[in-house]
Amino acid sequence: MPETNDGWFREIDSKDTISVSLKVSKKLFEGKSKFQDIKIIRNPEFGNVLILDDGFQTTEFDEFLYHEMLVHVPMATHPNPQEVLIVGAGDGGALRETLKHPVKKVVMVELDGKVIDVSKKFLPSLSNGAFEDKRAEVIVGDGADYMAKCKNRFDVIILDLTDPIMDEAKNLYTPVFFKNLFGALKADGVFSMQGGCKFFRSDLIKNYSFVPVSQFFPITKVYLCDIPAYGTTWPLIIGSKKHDPEKPRTLKISGLKCYNTDYHKAAFKLPNFLAQALYG
Amino acid sequence: MPETNDGWFREIDSKDTISVSLKVSKKLFEGKSKFQDIKIIRNPEFGNVLILDDGFQTTEFDEFLYHEMLVHVPMATHPNPQEVLIVGAGDGGALRETLKHPVKKVVMVELDGKVIDVSKKFLPSLSNGAFEDKRAEVIVGDGADYMAKCKNRFDVIILDLTDPIMDEAKNLYTPVFFKNLFGALKADGVFSMQGGCKFFRSDLIKNYSFVPVSQFFPITKVYLCDIPAYGTTWPLIIGSKKHDPEKPRTLKISGLKCYNTDYHKAAFKLPNFLAQALYG
Repeated sequence: MPETNDGWFREIDSKDTISVSLKVSKKLFEGKSKFQDIKIIRNPEFGNVLILDDGFQTTEFDEFLYHEMLVHVPMATHPNPQEVLIVGAGDGGALRETLKHPVKKVVMVELDGKVIDVSKKFLPSLSNGAFEDKRAEVIVGDGADYMAKCKNRFDVIILDLTDPIMDEAKNLYTPVFFKNLFGALKADGVFSMQGGCKFFRSDLIKNYSFVPVSQFFPITKVYLCDIPAYGTTWPLIIGSKKHDPEKPRTLKISGLKCYNTDYHKAAFKLPNFLAQALYG
Repeated sequence: MPETNDGWFREIDSKDTISVSLKVSKKLFEGKSKFQDIKIIRNPEFGNVLILDDGFQTTEFDEFLYHEMLVHVPMATHPNPQEVLIVGAGDGGALRETLKHPVKKVVMVELDGKVIDVSKKFLPSLSNGAFEDKRAEVIVGDGADYMAKCKNRFDVIILDLTDPIMDEAKNLYTPVFFKNLFGALKADGVFSMQGGCKFFRSDLIKNYSFVPVSQFFPITKVYLCDIPAYGTTWPLIIGSKKHDPEKPRTLKISGLKCYNTDYHKAAFKLPNFLAQALYG
């Protein structure tokens, strides 16, 4: 549901039973790209907020929680990631975190160039100069097509895309998509993606994320991340060909606001109902 | 903020920047006690919802997450809890979980008898017969006064009370209150309480919960719990005279939907910003 008339922007989730609202202190941008509706609002606590098709995407205040956990968990799972692919993530947050590692090359493929432009202007702390890094190659194009052409190339792939449970995503998260993702990774590659729904909906997580990934990846695990603007703990999925995500190496990156090795390991410890739904 | 006119009940949090709404499929009860306004609504996903003074208190669907973590973490920290005091918790959920342990006696002191009556009627799964257990003594009265009269009596105390950051709570969570709480515990006693605000507000957690508790308890720690109806991860506080909450014994209780020993330990692993705010 779009903006309400009382100075709040409300996102109603897919089940239409619970919703999160953020107060709007200022409307900063409203426009349409070829692919989606894009809005930027300002909130007194969360700062500038990116809204895509009336769903909260990220906020200046809480984005570090999501981006650090989406990126550093697979990066710490891999012993020496040098070549990384990011699909989606037009706001630049995932690229910024990935470039904190001593990587050789990061390719980022975002479908909607307008999201990159709007984010650079209204959410500059998200990319924080990452788009200008010499190790980054930013392609405006279809990430699924891009992965289909890559074979055995990347150490880590990070997906930051549409919620997998959305109707619009049915044609994206197909078996062919995951097969190509698997093929684009090297023999010990790792990838991460967000689970697309609140953590207590274990059936949705299982059916739309966990099972499709586990068809291809011998090690498939769910870990939890706190995203205040999404209104509850959020599941992330990691697929790994060889390395155990619960045995990360210690990162040598200073100044992280969320991620640490203990928190990484703890994120994989699930409440009983979720562990039972996923792992039986 | 009270109910909106569009079939949703919205709770606006103390900072007036983010809010959670639950859809109202039916209004079941509305009344006032001597102490507060009490409402019960039904939500298609969360079931019956207890609302006190226009704040979500607990829901049939997600209450197990909060109650299991509030109760079993201190109970597993103590090596052999026999005498337990619960203050507040009129819905009966904390009493139900406590009685799953082989305790001798649980005293529960709830200020508002009407909350007990309304909860028994509209949220029967919360207490699930616990009020009739022979080991339970339920007192309608002032828990702070009760603790002031107890010396060296309880192994575990569980507080399930007003948010500590609310204005109304200033006269409750005083140094005398925590001194009496400390005095009511035995020499190796443990207590838990909820932190009263979203987990990302580290200053509020520190100033209103962590510091006041740590004035008295040599071991004071914050752990995290997922409460969907509160709109994000929620901090719980544990104060212990002797036993380390991060070294719990393994419980022999079957059928728990959330709590397990790994999840208990993981709950104490905090994101950097919160660990730094609390522990320096």
